[in-house]
Amino acid sequence: MTKLIEYEDAGDEVKAIYDDIRATRQTEYINNFWKAIANHPPTLKRTWESIKEVMASPGELDPLVRELIYIAVSVTNGCDYCISSHSAAARGKGMNDAMFGELLAIIATANTTNRLANGYQIPVDEIFKT
Amino acid sequence: MTKLIEYEDAGDEVKAIYDDIRATRQTEYINNFWKAIANHPPTLKRTWESIKEVMASPGELDPLVRELIYIAVSVTNGCDYCISSHSAAARGKGMNDAMFGELLAIIATANTTNRLANGYQIPVDEIFKT
Amino acid sequence: MTKLIEYEDAGDEVKAIYDDIRATRQTEYINNFWKAIANHPPTLKRTWESIKEVMASPGELDPLVRELIYIAVSVTNGCDYCISSHSAAARGKGMNDAMFGELLAIIATANTTNRLANGYQIPVDEIFKT
Amino acid sequence: MTKLIEYEDAGDEVKAIYDDIRATRQTEYINNFWKAIANHPPTLKRTWESIKEVMASPGELDPLVRELIYIAVSVTNGCDYCISSHSAAARGKGMNDAMFGELLAIIATANTTNRLANGYQIPVDEIFKT
Amino acid sequence: MTKLIEYEDAGDEVKAIYDDIRATRQTEYINNFWKAIANHPPTLKRTWESIKEVMASPGELDPLVRELIYIAVSVTNGCDYCISSHSAAARGKGMNDAMFGELLAIIATANTTNRLANGYQIPVDEIFKT
Amino acid sequence: MTKLIEYEDAGDEVKAIYDDIRATRQTEYINNFWKAIANHPPTLKRTWESIKEVMASPGELDPLVRELIYIAVSVTNGCDYCISSHSAAARGKGMNDAMFGELLAIIATANTTNRLANGYQIPVDEIFKT
Repeated sequence: MTKLIEYEDAGDEVKAIYDDIRATRQTEYINNFWKAIANHPPTLKRTWESIKEVMASPGELDPLVRELIYIAVSVTNGCDYCISSHSAAARGKGMNDAMFGELLAIIATANTTNRLANGYQIPVDEIFKT
Repeated sequence: MTKLIEYEDAGDEVKAIYDDIRATRQTEYINNFWKAIANHPPTLKRTWESIKEVMASPGELDPLVRELIYIAVSVTNGCDYCISSHSAAARGKGMNDAMFGELLAIIATANTTNRLANGYQIPVDEIFKT
Repeated sequence: MTKLIEYEDAGDEVKAIYDDIRATRQTEYINNFWKAIANHPPTLKRTWESIKEVMASPGELDPLVRELIYIAVSVTNGCDYCISSHSAAARGKGMNDAMFGELLAIIATANTTNRLANGYQIPVDEIFKT
Repeated sequence: MTKLIEYEDAGDEVKAIYDDIRATRQTEYINNFWKAIANHPPTLKRTWESIKEVMASPGELDPLVRELIYIAVSVTNGCDYCISSHSAAARGKGMNDAMFGELLAIIATANTTNRLANGYQIPVDEIFKT
Repeated sequence: MTKLIEYEDAGDEVKAIYDDIRATRQTEYINNFWKAIANHPPTLKRTWESIKEVMASPGELDPLVRELIYIAVSVTNGCDYCISSHSAAARGKGMNDAMFGELLAIIATANTTNRLANGYQIPVDEIFKT
Repeated sequence: MTKLIEYEDAGDEVKAIYDDIRATRQTEYINNFWKAIANHPPTLKRTWESIKEVMASPGELDPLVRELIYIAVSVTNGCDYCISSHSAAARGKGMNDAMFGELLAIIATANTTNRLANGYQIPVDEIFKT
């Protein structure tokens, strides 16, 4: 199992990212994902900056919708860690039980029709190509 | 390639579904997905009823958000047909270029962190388990 | 695109495999899959021997069932070539339209419940572990 | 972790599905999958009805073959819950150790050739398109 | 299909990235990937900076090995565009036919054993956990 | 869970493979993967012979690079067993922490761009087709 890098054991580059995670998220808690990828500081830095820009910068999609999309990918890929962490994040941003139920229903249905489209080798309609 | 079942060649069971698709979507156009799966009428019926319930019944998530989630699954699975058809549907429900760009950025980022979580074999935090 | 190796341009090692494919399948036709992987003769040899053993040796599962399983994997992975070639093989072994419809319905449903199991993070029942 | 909904804590809609599962399967046991998705009753209802129709209605494919196909999808997707539950179901319908071994050998081989077809970007033979 | 953004039609932010791609790669050619994701300039910028850092910065792994790893992911995901572009890149960095054949053989074999490990639900050896 | 076949309980065919694994790898230790697939001796034999040829025969790619490619596939597929066993193998062949960090960074980035290529439905450049 990957060693988790705690704040007090981290180098300056990693500490600076941890500080920014804490300030951005307004919590002292650093979850295991960051402590694990801190084993490779350039990956920690690049991944945190990507997440911060993609999930927290101003934009057209509201923060909860962004989390729902994240969960849709994670469930489809079967990533247990990401399902857990982003479900928690979504709940923190207002996802209730009904929303979670609807979300999983859509994910499940899309996975079904994706495979039907594969299996029947359906040609894309001309009207969808324009 | 799968034979596409046109309305005039369809049996009564398939015709009834096509009629309901047209009425529900308020368009004469039946896209190839339905014409392909109509080769197996029980699959057509079950799939349409699922899609109708999951994508069009009242609920917590608005219709555009449902389409964004659908696209997230389809892109992750690499289903070209479903990306095409649901991108068109999303645009019809208000998705603009900026939203599409943000959507793909989230999908891309989630696929990255899903693999980092796999590769580093990161244990789920206790606080995410409750 | 990968160069396809025709019989007359092949080395002796590849020719011997092509001969065995023809003899085993009782057809002169060598499909593109073999002509492509013939670019790396050890892969051609190993893959043909595996396919021959797994798909054509005596066993508990009949040849058509083996093809249905092959299609289930190929549809789930979205491999267009393999869907095409193994659907043709399955039809040659007796798959009719109704069977194909049922097959895709099962594949589609399994893909749905796989994702629901992921999303709800369902613990495996004790009775399934014994 | 998802709360599992027991019969005595369930609403009438869920209880009716549990009753039908018990009657259809002729067992008192409701496995965790249903207790988990019961958190969203429309998903429970829709999923059960799909499973019942796809896996238990009369058709061309016998019940054991249907389970083998289900396992092929679940193994390819890496869904541990579904592998466990459908392997148990398949054994209940007659799958022996030799069949299971052959099944996994086919799944493994198909996953290999799917990737070779991807990697060599093999064009689909004309004879497979008709 | 996504509109491809040509240099002369691009805004200053996109032009600056295109200039950097040209300088870094020492070629005038900008491939379609960049012209497509340029529809969302923050994604273009973030993705290019990630690729540049991950694929072209000094490190332990040589440039050709990095491309082989890239191809392994792309073949496993079935991403035709990425297989094409990174196979070209790998050839430019010294990949010959024999290397490509060995690469695909490893990818194919790993996909087989991944599924066997799933299907047999094999517990991780204690010696691998330390 | 699958029964693990120990040497002393194995039949002659399985024992011979175990002996060859030990001789080839110069270790007494047989890891669980082999003990699990030994439940189906033809699969054990075929899989071992493939692994031995693909991972250990002379060729263009050195043994460590082969392991890195194996890990790239296993991480992308989310196969926990294979990530564990091949990470151990890679470390035994010289992979250090920096290499592992770079490897995962490439895998993560490739998974991102694979999905961007899917989502933007990017046409393959003509220069990549020759």
